[in-house]
Amino acid sequence: MDKTALFKFQSGLYVVSAKAGEDVGACIVNTGLQLTSEPIQVAVVVNKQNHTEEVIERAGHFALTLVTEEADMLYIGRFGFRTSANFDKFDGIESAETTLGDPYTPVNSACVIACDVVQTLDVGTHVLFVGEVKDARNLSDAHPMTYEYYHTVLKGKTPPKASSFVA
Amino acid sequence: MDKTALFKFQSGLYVVSAKAGEDVGACIVNTGLQLTSEPIQVAVVVNKQNHTEEVIERAGHFALTLVTEEADMLYIGRFGFRTSANFDKFDGIESAETTLGDPYTPVNSACVIACDVVQTLDVGTHVLFVGEVKDARNLSDAHPMTYEYYHTVLKGKTPPKASSFVA
Repeated sequence: MDKTALFKFQSGLYVVSAKAGEDVGACIVNTGLQLTSEPIQVAVVVNKQNHTEEVIERAGHFALTLVTEEADMLYIGRFGFRTSANFDKFDGIESAETTLGDPYTPVNSACVIACDVVQTLDVGTHVLFVGEVKDARNLSDAHPMTYEYYHTVLKGKTPPKASSFVA
Repeated sequence: MDKTALFKFQSGLYVVSAKAGEDVGACIVNTGLQLTSEPIQVAVVVNKQNHTEEVIERAGHFALTLVTEEADMLYIGRFGFRTSANFDKFDGIESAETTLGDPYTPVNSACVIACDVVQTLDVGTHVLFVGEVKDARNLSDAHPMTYEYYHTVLKGKTPPKASSFVA
């Protein structure tokens, strides 16, 4: 088996976020996927070791933004390489809330999707959340960042908790 | 709600295929996604009205190839705009079989992944199959085709049964 074959799978780079009470979680994933169009449902896959996973479970809803190519490594590092457990990732930057109450950044985001969790699937190290889309908005005409762009142009790394990490 | 926000989600174009007895199913999807890395699991989402969905259920395994930018609309049309119910989509073209016995085309494919179905999730109009990857091979250095490339360069349409169809 040649695991590098998996590197070719194409995806975008997303920030998934949720707020449960005063607890805020947010992290970078490359696992946003539209599942159905009637009703509109999306999936997002989050590592169980991410604080965000637990916050989404408690909140029962989440926000998903698609990162644009205008985002720099400082922005991606804020959401991708720190933990929400002891740090509000929206602290000190411009943010807004979806109609469901989840925080997101209008800057560096091509669009934002507000989802109610309607199903969860335990896939081992990660949880797959099925979200029914309650609101969707375009935020920028900047091109969405693909995972490939993140790797090849920004020279970004894949952290061990990512769905696509290969040891 | 602005449904066009969903159009920005980034994905690749894949052929998912399976063989159960003498029954062969194959179709184009944009819903390939790596879920976990230990073990390596991928998801693929297929419309219940696709013959291929039923064949995967019966076979208990499937192959997933990532289409390259070298594929033309004739190739995509063969797999995307006809039904496998009364037509073997591999008839008359070069094909091979994965170690699990599912057919795929080495041509126009960046890589091929052989998966055992380990979980299924009913998401309404579609079924999400979780596949544990049993084999993975690179087939071509040609760039993988993204769904965006399919729409913008090849001017491809999104058929009604697709996960991302918007009426």
